[in-house]
Amino acid sequence: MGRQIEIICIGNELLIGKTLNTNATWMAKRATSLGIEVRRVTVVEDNVKEIAKITDEALRRNPSFIVTTGGLGPTFDDKTLEGLSKALRSRLRVNEKALAMIKRKYEAYSKQAKITKIELTPPRIKMAKLPENSEPLPNPVGTAPGVLVKVGGTTLVALPGVPPEMMAIFEESIVPLLRKKAGNVTFFETSIYADSIMESTLAPLIDQVIHDNPLVYIKSHPKGEEDEPHIELHFSTTSKEPRTAKNHLENAIIQLSGLIEKNAGTVRTKRVRQD
Amino acid sequence: MGRQIEIICIGNELLIGKTLNTNATWMAKRATSLGIEVRRVTVVEDNVKEIAKITDEALRRNPSFIVTTGGLGPTFDDKTLEGLSKALRSRLRVNEKALAMIKRKYEAYSKQAKITKIELTPPRIKMAKLPENSEPLPNPVGTAPGVLVKVGGTTLVALPGVPPEMMAIFEESIVPLLRKKAGNVTFFETSIYADSIMESTLAPLIDQVIHDNPLVYIKSHPKGEEDEPHIELHFSTTSKEPRTAKNHLENAIIQLSGLIEKNAGTVRTKRVRQD
Repeated sequence: MGRQIEIICIGNELLIGKTLNTNATWMAKRATSLGIEVRRVTVVEDNVKEIAKITDEALRRNPSFIVTTGGLGPTFDDKTLEGLSKALRSRLRVNEKALAMIKRKYEAYSKQAKITKIELTPPRIKMAKLPENSEPLPNPVGTAPGVLVKVGGTTLVALPGVPPEMMAIFEESIVPLLRKKAGNVTFFETSIYADSIMESTLAPLIDQVIHDNPLVYIKSHPKGEEDEPHIELHFSTTSKEPRTAKNHLENAIIQLSGLIEKNAGTVRTKRVRQD
Repeated sequence: MGRQIEIICIGNELLIGKTLNTNATWMAKRATSLGIEVRRVTVVEDNVKEIAKITDEALRRNPSFIVTTGGLGPTFDDKTLEGLSKALRSRLRVNEKALAMIKRKYEAYSKQAKITKIELTPPRIKMAKLPENSEPLPNPVGTAPGVLVKVGGTTLVALPGVPPEMMAIFEESIVPLLRKKAGNVTFFETSIYADSIMESTLAPLIDQVIHDNPLVYIKSHPKGEEDEPHIELHFSTTSKEPRTAKNHLENAIIQLSGLIEKNAGTVRTKRVRQD
């Protein structure tokens, strides 16, 4: 029954507001589109205790998947694997498969740059020190492998924070697991836009349409102000059947559009600049 | 001693990847710049139980501030105040001060639009139903007031999710509280950029500089790939004395720049397009 994912983003740069958390948004959108429900996103600093605590808390909620991003690199502040091993009460050990992946990367780099062999220094070996019983995931565009470990009913995955690396490993190694979990369920969504009707006037109309269309979720996103309202109305549903989903969404949209027009509002199907 | 803030962002649109969480980034940056440490950002769905649970968890960690964004509007999916009241084990009641603020807004709207009086319907009154013992915060640009309630040593604040409304209330009502808490402490940061040196080669150099400059935090942000590296090096420190802070940062930058150049890397002080 459970097809839930939690996302944990690790990095001081997120907590000081230096970096916009595009990783969480990208991953949430991708998982949602595959029919997996994103339950929480947590952002936490580069601190072993905090990473361990948050991972432990997430594991207790027993989601199907937990995916972390960030903190897999070679520097001192890359602390994710240490945090995970603390949460899992398992030791960090050099994983031979991970080490071989990393070795091959540096051999390719030295060949390409026509320089002498790049030594496997401790910071480079660090990226191959994984919690026991975990599995490295190939990184098609960078050096640090992803890491996968099963904990009870949860698949716990650690991905790098550099967006192209995170996305490449997610597509190659995680998407197939999400698809398998979701079965044929998919997420469907569409928006309409209402003008000249206040959100507070819309509220009871939305209530009525949701009552009559229990499989459709409707959320209003005000863009203008209450006295000059432009409101996006976002309709979504989850279904195994694209045609059924489309019907459900259309019925709800037709009903709500009618109610808006009865209340002196206007409806657009396209966004305009101010939305 | 504690000058910590936790941010809780409430809204399905964040969890389905529809909306980038710019609110969290903006607030994190603003709080950091005022010397307040952002410990966690949590994103959670529009669900009373979940909002209550996460607020309760945050209160147990006893930060100086908890700020929530989203879910204060008039529609059914605006559930923040219900969640907070559940966490606080206090009832939701119409707050007369909040109701007066909302009433004034609708009077102004109807005057402006030259229409008859806008009635205070249940969805409009809903925005004035606050947990007991809380205080409404004026919303200079929208309708729903912010809400402030003290819980032990924590100031818990709920702000709307519409960015201009969130920012306006934050600037007007929250920034003065953060400043008071932080005293004269401020956050200082600067970046340099290193080319032609791998992050894994940089790692031990950063370790050395951090060891010699214990008040400076250095974090590397790789932008290219390991074999074609462009790395941002972000230096930060917190201090009551701008001059002291500047000296600390400069010493660390000079030392690390020297070490990078010794290792065949180059240093820039400006970012280029690919950073």
